[in-house]
Amino acid sequence: MQVKPKPYAIQMLPIGCVVGGRREATKKDGWGNNRCTLVLDPTRFGPDALSGLAALSHLQVLFYFHVEAEEPEEVGARHPRGRTDWPCVGIFAQRGRMRPNRIGTSYCRILAVRGTEIDVVGLDAVDGSPLLDLKPVWEEYLPGGELRQPDWSHELMALYW
Amino acid sequence: MQVKPKPYAIQMLPIGCVVGGRREATKKDGWGNNRCTLVLDPTRFGPDALSGLAALSHLQVLFYFHVEAEEPEEVGARHPRGRTDWPCVGIFAQRGRMRPNRIGTSYCRILAVRGTEIDVVGLDAVDGSPLLDLKPVWEEYLPGGELRQPDWSHELMALYW
Repeated sequence: MQVKPKPYAIQMLPIGCVVGGRREATKKDGWGNNRCTLVLDPTRFGPDALSGLAALSHLQVLFYFHVEAEEPEEVGARHPRGRTDWPCVGIFAQRGRMRPNRIGTSYCRILAVRGTEIDVVGLDAVDGSPLLDLKPVWEEYLPGGELRQPDWSHELMALYW
Repeated sequence: MQVKPKPYAIQMLPIGCVVGGRREATKKDGWGNNRCTLVLDPTRFGPDALSGLAALSHLQVLFYFHVEAEEPEEVGARHPRGRTDWPCVGIFAQRGRMRPNRIGTSYCRILAVRGTEIDVVGLDAVDGSPLLDLKPVWEEYLPGGELRQPDWSHELMALYW
C-alpha cells in the first residue's frame, strides 16, 4: 500500500479513576468478583454525564495501565504470560498490558450510580487506574457472527474471571 | 467517597491509521460492509506485531475520532443524534464521537493479514482515522450474563450495520 500513516501525538486527560478493589497488578486471574468504584473528576463532570446509565446492565470501561507505565512497551511477539507451551504471538494478537498506548478495555456490571460515581463488579483494573472513557454496552455493538480464536486463549481465560 | 482522582495528561502515539473505506463522517449508518485496511506505522512495527492474528476471526479496534477534533468535547447530557423523541442522556450513556478523549472502540472482521497491514470489514471508522490499539476478540472477554439496554438504543442501532 502506498499510503504512509503519519502518526502525531495525542494528549488525553483521564476522566476520573478507579477507586477500591484489587490493589496489586501481579495477580492476573480471578477478577469476576472484583468490586470497585469509578469516580469521575468532579472538577469537569456533574451527575448529568452519567444520566441514563441506570437503564444499562453493563458498562464498557477504557482505562490506562498505569502500573509500570515507565517500562518499555512491547512492539513485537512474545509468549503470552511467558508460557512457552503457548505460541509466540504479536502484541496485537494478545491482550497484555505492556502494549503500545497501554489502553485496557473491559466490560463490567453496573451495581449502582450515585452522582458522579459508579459502583461496578467484574472490572479487571486495579485501584487507582486512570479512566479514559466509559461507554454503554449495547448488544448490537458486540461482534457479529461466529467467533474464531486460538486454543491457548481459552486456556489463558479459564481462570480469568 | 473521600478519594479525589488527580488526573494527569497522558501522551499517546497512534500505532498507525485506517486507510480506505468510507471517507465522510457525516453518514452515521450502514457500516456493515465498510472495507478498509489497518496500516501499522512501519517505522515502529514489523510483521511480528501481528503474528498469530490469522487465528482470529474478529479484531477489536481502538481509534481516535479525529474529524472535528478541535471542537469542544461534550461532558454533560444531550439527545443522541439530536433526536428529541429519545431521552436526554449523559455522554457516558451514549456512544457519540464528541466524547472526552474521543476514543472509538469497535469490532470488525479480519479478511487478510499482510505484513503490517490488515484488511477488515465492518469497521465504523473513516479513512485516515488514527489507530490507538488492536486487540484480539475472545468470547470470554465479552460481557457476561444478560444485557439490559434502553429501547432507544435498539432504534439507534437498527440501521447502523
